[in-house]
Amino acid sequence: MSESVPTVPTGIEGLDELMSGGFPKGRVILVLGGPGSGKTVLASQFLYKGLANYGENGIMVSLDEAKDHYFAEMMKFGWDFRKAEAEGKFGFLDATRLSRVAMLKEKMLKEESSSLRGKQLPIDKLIEELQTKIKELNAHRVVLDTLAQLFYRFLDPIERRTAGVDLIEALSDLGATVLVTTELSQLGLERKLMDEEFLAHGVIMMQTLYSGGTTTRGLQVEKMRGVSINNNLVPYTIDRTGIEIYPNMTLFRER
Amino acid sequence: MSESVPTVPTGIEGLDELMSGGFPKGRVILVLGGPGSGKTVLASQFLYKGLANYGENGIMVSLDEAKDHYFAEMMKFGWDFRKAEAEGKFGFLDATRLSRVAMLKEKMLKEESSSLRGKQLPIDKLIEELQTKIKELNAHRVVLDTLAQLFYRFLDPIERRTAGVDLIEALSDLGATVLVTTELSQLGLERKLMDEEFLAHGVIMMQTLYSGGTTTRGLQVEKMRGVSINNNLVPYTIDRTGIEIYPNMTLFRER
Amino acid sequence: MSESVPTVPTGIEGLDELMSGGFPKGRVILVLGGPGSGKTVLASQFLYKGLANYGENGIMVSLDEAKDHYFAEMMKFGWDFRKAEAEGKFGFLDATRLSRVAMLKEKMLKEESSSLRGKQLPIDKLIEELQTKIKELNAHRVVLDTLAQLFYRFLDPIERRTAGVDLIEALSDLGATVLVTTELSQLGLERKLMDEEFLAHGVIMMQTLYSGGTTTRGLQVEKMRGVSINNNLVPYTIDRTGIEIYPNMTLFRER
Amino acid sequence: MSESVPTVPTGIEGLDELMSGGFPKGRVILVLGGPGSGKTVLASQFLYKGLANYGENGIMVSLDEAKDHYFAEMMKFGWDFRKAEAEGKFGFLDATRLSRVAMLKEKMLKEESSSLRGKQLPIDKLIEELQTKIKELNAHRVVLDTLAQLFYRFLDPIERRTAGVDLIEALSDLGATVLVTTELSQLGLERKLMDEEFLAHGVIMMQTLYSGGTTTRGLQVEKMRGVSINNNLVPYTIDRTGIEIYPNMTLFRER
Amino acid sequence: MSESVPTVPTGIEGLDELMSGGFPKGRVILVLGGPGSGKTVLASQFLYKGLANYGENGIMVSLDEAKDHYFAEMMKFGWDFRKAEAEGKFGFLDATRLSRVAMLKEKMLKEESSSLRGKQLPIDKLIEELQTKIKELNAHRVVLDTLAQLFYRFLDPIERRTAGVDLIEALSDLGATVLVTTELSQLGLERKLMDEEFLAHGVIMMQTLYSGGTTTRGLQVEKMRGVSINNNLVPYTIDRTGIEIYPNMTLFRER
Amino acid sequence: MSESVPTVPTGIEGLDELMSGGFPKGRVILVLGGPGSGKTVLASQFLYKGLANYGENGIMVSLDEAKDHYFAEMMKFGWDFRKAEAEGKFGFLDATRLSRVAMLKEKMLKEESSSLRGKQLPIDKLIEELQTKIKELNAHRVVLDTLAQLFYRFLDPIERRTAGVDLIEALSDLGATVLVTTELSQLGLERKLMDEEFLAHGVIMMQTLYSGGTTTRGLQVEKMRGVSINNNLVPYTIDRTGIEIYPNMTLFRER
Repeated sequence: MSESVPTVPTGIEGLDELMSGGFPKGRVILVLGGPGSGKTVLASQFLYKGLANYGENGIMVSLDEAKDHYFAEMMKFGWDFRKAEAEGKFGFLDATRLSRVAMLKEKMLKEESSSLRGKQLPIDKLIEELQTKIKELNAHRVVLDTLAQLFYRFLDPIERRTAGVDLIEALSDLGATVLVTTELSQLGLERKLMDEEFLAHGVIMMQTLYSGGTTTRGLQVEKMRGVSINNNLVPYTIDRTGIEIYPNMTLFRER
Repeated sequence: MSESVPTVPTGIEGLDELMSGGFPKGRVILVLGGPGSGKTVLASQFLYKGLANYGENGIMVSLDEAKDHYFAEMMKFGWDFRKAEAEGKFGFLDATRLSRVAMLKEKMLKEESSSLRGKQLPIDKLIEELQTKIKELNAHRVVLDTLAQLFYRFLDPIERRTAGVDLIEALSDLGATVLVTTELSQLGLERKLMDEEFLAHGVIMMQTLYSGGTTTRGLQVEKMRGVSINNNLVPYTIDRTGIEIYPNMTLFRER
Repeated sequence: MSESVPTVPTGIEGLDELMSGGFPKGRVILVLGGPGSGKTVLASQFLYKGLANYGENGIMVSLDEAKDHYFAEMMKFGWDFRKAEAEGKFGFLDATRLSRVAMLKEKMLKEESSSLRGKQLPIDKLIEELQTKIKELNAHRVVLDTLAQLFYRFLDPIERRTAGVDLIEALSDLGATVLVTTELSQLGLERKLMDEEFLAHGVIMMQTLYSGGTTTRGLQVEKMRGVSINNNLVPYTIDRTGIEIYPNMTLFRER
Repeated sequence: MSESVPTVPTGIEGLDELMSGGFPKGRVILVLGGPGSGKTVLASQFLYKGLANYGENGIMVSLDEAKDHYFAEMMKFGWDFRKAEAEGKFGFLDATRLSRVAMLKEKMLKEESSSLRGKQLPIDKLIEELQTKIKELNAHRVVLDTLAQLFYRFLDPIERRTAGVDLIEALSDLGATVLVTTELSQLGLERKLMDEEFLAHGVIMMQTLYSGGTTTRGLQVEKMRGVSINNNLVPYTIDRTGIEIYPNMTLFRER
Repeated sequence: MSESVPTVPTGIEGLDELMSGGFPKGRVILVLGGPGSGKTVLASQFLYKGLANYGENGIMVSLDEAKDHYFAEMMKFGWDFRKAEAEGKFGFLDATRLSRVAMLKEKMLKEESSSLRGKQLPIDKLIEELQTKIKELNAHRVVLDTLAQLFYRFLDPIERRTAGVDLIEALSDLGATVLVTTELSQLGLERKLMDEEFLAHGVIMMQTLYSGGTTTRGLQVEKMRGVSINNNLVPYTIDRTGIEIYPNMTLFRER
Repeated sequence: MSESVPTVPTGIEGLDELMSGGFPKGRVILVLGGPGSGKTVLASQFLYKGLANYGENGIMVSLDEAKDHYFAEMMKFGWDFRKAEAEGKFGFLDATRLSRVAMLKEKMLKEESSSLRGKQLPIDKLIEELQTKIKELNAHRVVLDTLAQLFYRFLDPIERRTAGVDLIEALSDLGATVLVTTELSQLGLERKLMDEEFLAHGVIMMQTLYSGGTTTRGLQVEKMRGVSINNNLVPYTIDRTGIEIYPNMTLFRER
């Protein structure tokens, strides 16, 4: 029994109860959601609670927002990442620029040869920078927000999945527990499953539901390898203290 | 706490209440809707209330309508943009011509080489003209109506998203709060999410609903970075004074 | 207030009430419907009432039917267009031939070079003929029936929309109020919006509904720029006097 | 009033009542239905009643069945087409061979050049043979069963629609009233409309419905140019005397 | 009346009652169903009852299963095809090998020229072997199980339909009554119709339905040329004696 | 009767009752499910119970997880595969590396020639290694987890199905009873059937259902050649002892 899967507490109210203790340590968890569902909030709360409550330093790899905007937006929840950064507990990796560079490079490549499209060079470079940062901060928690900004460049489904396998393997080798946010491309129930849902070790889905006349938010732990889960669809709220999950309530998912 | 996200009041009855005060200042908000949903009315009301009530000058970048038609249509709501223009509080940038030029240029390019299709040249020029106009008027509010007229030229999803990243970044750098209207391409609930919904800092959805036997209009603040929102679907009306939103009522969204 | 949008009465029982007086004068209105929905009847009634009741001469540009068939079919409603033509109040532009010529020309072109496909030459010629006819008759109402016969040749969505922008702009410049009929390509509620719905200044949708066991016809004014509208789905009938709309009744649109 | 649209009685129990007297004379009517819906039966009944009750000779152009099989299948309804053929009242044009020839020819062409695919040569030849047969028999009724066997060869939607315009125009010029059967390619309500539905002068839809636990057949006159119609969905049966339609009953079309 | 369509009893409990006596003799019937619906069982029962009860010898052309597996699986129903084979009443044509050969040949061809893809050579050879076997056994019943194994090689819809016309015509010329099983490619009601449903002379659909909490099997005779049918959806069961159909019961087909 | 189909008990609580005793011995069974449905758990339980209760050694061919992770995850259920491996009762074939090699090789090939894409070389090698391992351990149970990791490389549907036929045939020839897990690519009821469902000898579907407000797991034996099945949708649970199936309960499958 000594070799069974260890977990890390998320620090998010109610989430650990859905997963008998927390995320499987050192593995890669996907956080899926539509616009405005709070993916970035959940992932940031995982980082902030890590450094504030569990002494685990963290790194945010942002492909969407510059540092100043990110810091201002997080202050709404009282999470002072700027201070944490100054204290050496938190690192912010601004990959929006990387992402722009990747696009420009790719554009040039595309003009040379269309067969070079989607080369992973910038992803490899990102992983390298991240490895350096992890050592520097002795970080145990990493967030990559958002996968879609890296992956929309791949139109060929084989290259996309190959890159997904590569990235998730590279992230697995970091030693840290990693949350990767990504975007649902389709609203409604008859959605196509994404390759990442199969490739990741865990999947959390965040949705906006229209039950009755009001809008409700629902979260579901879809899979979590090696951990017993409650995979009911449960409500969550976003307020000034972040995300709160209600693991003992259930939601009717209407069609 | 001093660095948290500042907001600007919209001046639209009921809308500020859904967003704890207004739009996040200096950011780019997407207004999504079908034909006849009132996207242009909402965006124009944001401009008119800005200059009439809050002393914030504004600019309309129109890709759809010539100035005379736009002015006549807005008079229906009692908004005298012609007078505001004469007083130096309002600027109208007629980009319908730009859009035609872009098309002709593109047609010629296409005949030369299909790999040049969708070059952003006209978008860059539009941004330059807009920057000049903003300085000239000291404008703090900008509307671009409608994105679809610029973007339908991109068939390659990578180029489209690259252009979206470029445009939203360029609009972010203007210093003004920017509303960008765009068109839903699909009716019904099982819609595909648009890249712009992820790229923009905020998203407002305007819909026509068929509840019971009558047609009701419903608005939803889908996302607004750094601002607490009520994301219920709430009713709105369009009458001779413009758009009015009822933030405390809710709508049943039927399938 | 003097510069607000002027309207023209349609002469169709109940339709003006849905639009606070009539169509916006001099603009282009799209009439969308499935087979047998009565698009041609509605458009013809607009023309006939114009010349009979409001002293406005009209022109039918038909891409579907030859003149004799059209005249015979309209006699069912007691509309004697042959007499009106003899009196110089009505013009019939048989564009079925033009459409055939366009196809043959295109076929030849296609064999030379596929990049020439969909050239607008025949559309330009049609507009010229129409301009001449409008001057000749001093016409204020124009119907183009049906857009689909011109547009199905465009498979490239960019060329199609470019042609749409061109045509609607050209029709706007005619000075007349123009009704353009077109065909819904999809039955059911989850339909894809057509570019023309965004490009036109107004949109009227005509549908056949199956409520209870009987077939009901429903009409909706989807959009009408510069005019206050009731956009409820209301019933209409087609009998020996043409179309009658019931603006104060509503229809349940079943899924 | 003298020039209004003349009609021909169908001779099918209940059908004339849905169309105020019959089909518009000399025009082309589309009969749409799924497998087993009775399209061939309805069209054959139109032919048989024509020659038996109204003195109008008829021609069956069959692309599906050889003459012997067709004759045997029609005997089930007591319609002795073999006798009618012997008496010079009926002609059978076996176009299954033509269709095979067309395919072989096309295959050879395709191997030479893909740009020759779908040439209408066999359709032109079919029309010529039909013209000769019509003169020979002084026929007033023609059935072409089934369009799908001619049209599935066109994959390019432009060529398909061009061929459709050509064929329907050619059939219109025959002087006879023509029924063309075709196949629904999709079951369920959210179907795509077919080009032929817009091109034909009339459309009749035959469907199998599942209301309650039993299977019911429903027919709808979707459109009929120049003729007042009842476009309710009404039940029909197929028994040993052919098709019988119940114009005063209505069917619930379930989703 | 003497030339009306002759039928053959199927020997399947309840099926003949749905078709006023049996299948139309000498024609080609399609049996459509999903995985596990019992297509092979129904077709084998038709063969076994033919040789056991009606003195009609039969041939199974199997593209799915080798002879030993087939014989073992049929013993479950007490149908001893091995014995029947020994007595010269039954023939088993193992076309799985043919199918493999066809694939390998095709692979080689594909490497030479993509325009040779999908050549019917193996189908022609299969037909020849079948003709020989039919003469040898004086067989009146033939089953081909399953069409999908032959047809999935055709990606070009024209070639696929051409092959379908060829195969059904070739099977019609055999003199035997032929059952061809095939696979539904889509679950749910809004399915696309398959070309084979129009090309075959009869169609039987076998489905698994979820009514209430239990799984029910439902069969429908969709079409049967020249034979009066009851096309209700009726229940059937599969037990140790094979398939039993309940022609007087009906099933609610839920959405 | 002696030659009817032999079965092997699965050792999974309740599953054998759905299949009158177990899986058909020596055949290939497909286990289909979404992320988190427990495909790997069911397949591993089949292996573990085989070696613990029935003296049948087993082999896991894993394309998803490395050995250490797999062993740790299985300890959660008390299944000590490490010990079983040490005792020579269990073999673990780590094919994740093989899969990576295959991808790299393929990438190189693709740069040489696109016609070489998807060559089965790595699959052939996998089968060889498996044959060696089976002899070594005298294994009677094999699991391949998961097919999707091998098959997503095939974009050409013909090559994919050809590889499917090859693989299932190769697995059939192993002599062992084989479970192959695969991923559903689509949520919702109107799913497209996968080729593998027709090619495999048996199919088990594992689903997550939303009935009422809670999430329920449902399993269905869709097909099992030569074995009588109960194909109702029945509930199952996953707890610390593995999967338990309730063969006498039924689930309402909501739309």
